[in-house]
Order: sequence, then structure tokens, then C-alpha cells
Amino acid sequence: MDSKVNRQWRLATRPVGFINESDFEWREETVPTPGEGEILVRNIFLSLDPAIRGWVSEVKSYIPPVAIGEVMRGITIGVVEQSHHADFQAGDIVLGILGWQDYAVSNGAGLTRLPKDPSLPLTVHLGLFGIIGPTAYFGLLDVGKPKAGETLVVSAAAGAVGSLVGQIGKIKGCRVVGIVGTDEKCNWIKETLGFDAAINYRDESVRKHLRKHCPDGIDVFFDNVGGEILDAVLGLINVRARIVICGMISLYNITEPVPGPYNFSSILTQRARAEGFIILDYMNRFQEAYEDLGRWLAEGKIQYRVDVVDGLENAPGAINKLFEGTNKGKLIVKVSEEPSF
Amino acid sequence: MDSKVNRQWRLATRPVGFINESDFEWREETVPTPGEGEILVRNIFLSLDPAIRGWVSEVKSYIPPVAIGEVMRGITIGVVEQSHHADFQAGDIVLGILGWQDYAVSNGAGLTRLPKDPSLPLTVHLGLFGIIGPTAYFGLLDVGKPKAGETLVVSAAAGAVGSLVGQIGKIKGCRVVGIVGTDEKCNWIKETLGFDAAINYRDESVRKHLRKHCPDGIDVFFDNVGGEILDAVLGLINVRARIVICGMISLYNITEPVPGPYNFSSILTQRARAEGFIILDYMNRFQEAYEDLGRWLAEGKIQYRVDVVDGLENAPGAINKLFEGTNKGKLIVKVSEEPSF
Repeated sequence: MDSKVNRQWRLATRPVGFINESDFEWREETVPTPGEGEILVRNIFLSLDPAIRGWVSEVKSYIPPVAIGEVMRGITIGVVEQSHHADFQAGDIVLGILGWQDYAVSNGAGLTRLPKDPSLPLTVHLGLFGIIGPTAYFGLLDVGKPKAGETLVVSAAAGAVGSLVGQIGKIKGCRVVGIVGTDEKCNWIKETLGFDAAINYRDESVRKHLRKHCPDGIDVFFDNVGGEILDAVLGLINVRARIVICGMISLYNITEPVPGPYNFSSILTQRARAEGFIILDYMNRFQEAYEDLGRWLAEGKIQYRVDVVDGLENAPGAINKLFEGTNKGKLIVKVSEEPSF
Repeated sequence: MDSKVNRQWRLATRPVGFINESDFEWREETVPTPGEGEILVRNIFLSLDPAIRGWVSEVKSYIPPVAIGEVMRGITIGVVEQSHHADFQAGDIVLGILGWQDYAVSNGAGLTRLPKDPSLPLTVHLGLFGIIGPTAYFGLLDVGKPKAGETLVVSAAAGAVGSLVGQIGKIKGCRVVGIVGTDEKCNWIKETLGFDAAINYRDESVRKHLRKHCPDGIDVFFDNVGGEILDAVLGLINVRARIVICGMISLYNITEPVPGPYNFSSILTQRARAEGFIILDYMNRFQEAYEDLGRWLAEGKIQYRVDVVDGLENAPGAINKLFEGTNKGKLIVKVSEEPSF
């Protein structure tokens, strides 16, 4: 990387269906200069998340869409290279939303300084900490409210969030069934993560296998997928079931309106609760999640994996791995080299 | 009515689509004799409720279906004619589920003795008290949790439950918008009940008129209807909206599976909550509702109306009034004469 150039991906057009590289424009600009009260950050890692598909569409959502011509929005970890800000020093590692680019100038708003702990890779702050861990933690515990002995079903269960949800469910004493898209993922969540059962939705009738693996019905469903999987689960929920709507990845690339679940009426007959969940509402409580997650990690009770793609130039091509289900763990783009500490 | 005959409607076959009189069999049996610990009740009024459509279908629900050959299930008010039970005397008025028939023998389980208050018609116990009032009261206040200044939308707003929901919403300081099926009902809920606005879904674009009448979006939706009306509302809900799923009358007569709401994803983006509600879960708290409802009635703050159909023989024909929306108020069948007290 030439340090005098700030490489960027800017949004060129609103994607229709799956994201194409041609939806972005590659720009090479001069590195900006921080003013008084500002810092210059060099991005090291860029997080690729399913939510990105929503950010580039015009539909009303929980956050304004990325404007055409704007640097693409993305969560990043970077190192402070220059500081004219009392709270930051050169060499500080920061987590923020500095976008798909090499460098960004920031006034510090929305940035979190990360601890320099040589025993943990920096990517943990995108894979387990950052927003992923709190999403699993608060979504499951605050919205899903699982009780020991209940049956928890998780969709996209080998994904960054889903794999943590299932493991937290096990810690809380639930029977945990994961729905995934490959046999490799089935094996990983069962053998390595300790799920009680796994269903490969591409090979098996989800409804039939859910019925087999959830003999006492379903009490909590943590849904990242929506669509037919949600429908199959709704057909098997127990009275007072809780459905945590954390994502609807099956719908993010649709180009026509699609109907909601045919079994929607189960919400009435089972007095169930379906509740949407956006982690941004929990920003002020992240520390609670980090304390439990850090302890569980240290105790060997939870595991996570990251899938690192090398090079900012590959970001647009990599993002569809999330929708095809070919990523293995939290998808991260390596933008530049880590400093040693 | 010949007092020696117990006329009955028994379920003959499971209805397909709308209920037909031919789905029931008319029987004339001898009046049963109560044994030790039992009472004989003569039914006076029979309540017809949309939930009946669910009771005669085989689909898994919150209550077992009425069996073929069984006396049709229905909520009734009757008078005790003979008692061999310590807790009941001849002449007592009782509310229970004694079915579509003239007479029933009961051991008293599930029966509530009603006060003999000459200032209130007996039908109040099916129209405002009984289960209708508590359904509106707990569904709105416990599940919907409206706050003063919020916008509440009610579907089937001139119905027995909906008309109370809207009036309770006004008492709690909400802006209340009702969706109904005739201009007469629009006028009634606005002019007589004090709703802020009314939409006739047969004449007007629900979505367009909701947008007009809910300039600040929708915070609480009390839904008795489901289907397209729910979909229109979901497109306009605010962050943290609450959707009380109390009924889905638009779906009760369907013969093919129908999709859920196209705007289901609003539950995620708006972090909304959709929760099913069945009044049977609140049986032990009815007194709370009756106290407030009775006080509001006495203070003139709430009104209700009943639509009384004369004669048990007309029950099967009357029930579709609920699904056609041609009833004006709580639909009740008069089975026999009231005693005077």
C-alpha cells in the first residue's frame, strides 16, 4: 500500500439483488490532513456484515442509507497515525465506523479505544467483541429470555452471531438446535461448539428435522434468516414462545416484495412474541456483554472463528460470501498491516 | 319453547370456508336430569364470537376443537332451574360455556354466578363484561401498553372488542383511529364513541388514509383482523411499536394457506413487537378489568351495543354476520326468556 494514497470504495449505484463490484467506484485520493481536535486513522481491518445490504438500499430502516457517491459505510479497526485530539495518541487502536478506505479523519465521535492485549488478536474486536458479541448476548438474553431446559433454535447458526447465540444458550442450560447451509457447518456447531443438533437446510426438510430434534417444541427462536426457515419454526412453537428477529438475510437481496410467514397465525394461537432487535439500541450496555463474554472465552466456554479476506480491493467481491453462506466465521477484510505491540 | 325438549345444535361436519347451517345437526332431546352435586341450567343468551370459527376447525389452537357430534361450544348466560349443588340455588343466573342448546347439566366447574342488578341488562355480561371487556382491557393495556399522546389504531373497530379498545385508548390519552367496514360504523365510532378518525376499508385505501390520520406514525395496533389491514399498518409503525394480535378474522374462513404480511420486515427495522393474546390466559385477573370497566360505564365514559338475534334455531345463520361485518355490536342469540328479578 502506498501510504500517500487513500484508496476508497464509494457507492456508485444502488444494487439490485446481489451486490456487484460495479455498484462501487474505486477511488484513489490524497490522504486527508487532520485539523485541530481531529485524528488521522489508518484502517487495519474492515468488518463485512449482512446489515450492509440494508445500508445500500433506499428502504426506510434503522439507519439512513449510504448516499450515492459516499465512501461505503463499514465498521473498522484502525491505528491512530496523527493526533491533534487530547483523548487520542498516535499508536492508539480504535474501533469505529470509518468506512471502506485506507485512511479517515475523525473528531473521535463514535470511536472506541481498544486495549492493546498481545494475548488476543485484534480481530476479536470484530468477531467476538465489537458488535457481534453484544448482538448475540442481548438479543438472546434480553429479548429471547431463555430458561434452562427450554429448546432454543438458531438460524445461520454457524455465522458470527448465530454461533455465539447457540453457545450462550448452552451455557444457560437450553437444548440448542442450529440451522446451517453446509455439512461442514453442521459438524462444526455440533462437534466443536456443542450444539445438541444441526440441520442443513439445503439437504433436509427443515420442518421435518426440527420436529425430530425439538421433541418438546420450540421455546425460543433466534432468527437471522427469515423467509421459509422462520415459517417452518412458527409451525412448531410452544405457547409463549419468543422469536428474536435479529436479521432476515434471506430477504436482503430480494427485488420483489415477498410475503411474510404463512404460519404467522401461530403468533396468535400460541400467544407468542415476535420482536425485532437492533444492537445499536444497546450501545450503552456493551460493557455488561463484554464482561460475560470475556470470562466465558477465558474459561473455554465459547469459541469463535474469523474468515479474513486480504486486501481492500477485494471487499465488494467478498461480501456475497455472507449471502451465499461460504464464509467460515466472521467475515473481515484486512486493509493494512497491524502495528506490533 | 316446549320446556320438555332440549333443542340442540351439534357439529355435523367441519366447515370449509364460511360456516353453513348444514355443518350443524338440529336435535331435540329430552331435558337431562341433574345428579348429586349437579345443577340444571336453562340457557337464556348465547354469545356468538369470531373465535367460534377456530373451534370448529381441526387446526392446532389454544383450545381443543369441537368434536364431530358434540353439542356446539358457546358462551352462555342461563338460569339455574334445579340445584343439587351447595353453591347454587334455583333462580341463580350463571355465565359459562354451556353450548348451543336449551338446557345443560353442570357440576358448576367454570360457571360464574352473575349479580342480579335490575339497572343493567343481562346481556351486559356478554357485551361489556364476560370475556369481551377483559379482552379489550388486558389486550390493550397489558400487551399494547399505550402511553398518553401515542397513536393507537384498532381494526374491526366497531366490533364488540374493538369498540371498547378504542374507548379505553381515549381514556388513556391516545390518538385513536379505527378501521371498519361501513360508513354507519365510521359514524358511530367517531360521533358516538369519540374516536379521532375512522377508515372504511371497503371504500378507501387503508394505507393512504392511515398515513393521513396518523401523521406521527402508529405506536400501538390492536388487531382483530390480520391480512391486508395488518400489512398496511406494519408499513407505518414507529420504532418500538406494539402489535396486539387479538384476532385474525380475515383468515378464519380461508380454505388455502395465505401468506403473512409483506411488511413483516418492519418488525425488525422498527424493533417492533408483535404478540399474540388469548383472553383465557387472564381468567384470574378479570375482576381488575370489571372494576375499571364498571366505573367507566357508570361515569358515561364507555358505551357498548348488542345485536340480539331471536331464537336458537337462527344461531348457525347468524354467525356469518360476524365475518360479513353486518352485526351492529356484540352478537347474541336469545335462546329463552329472561326471568324477572
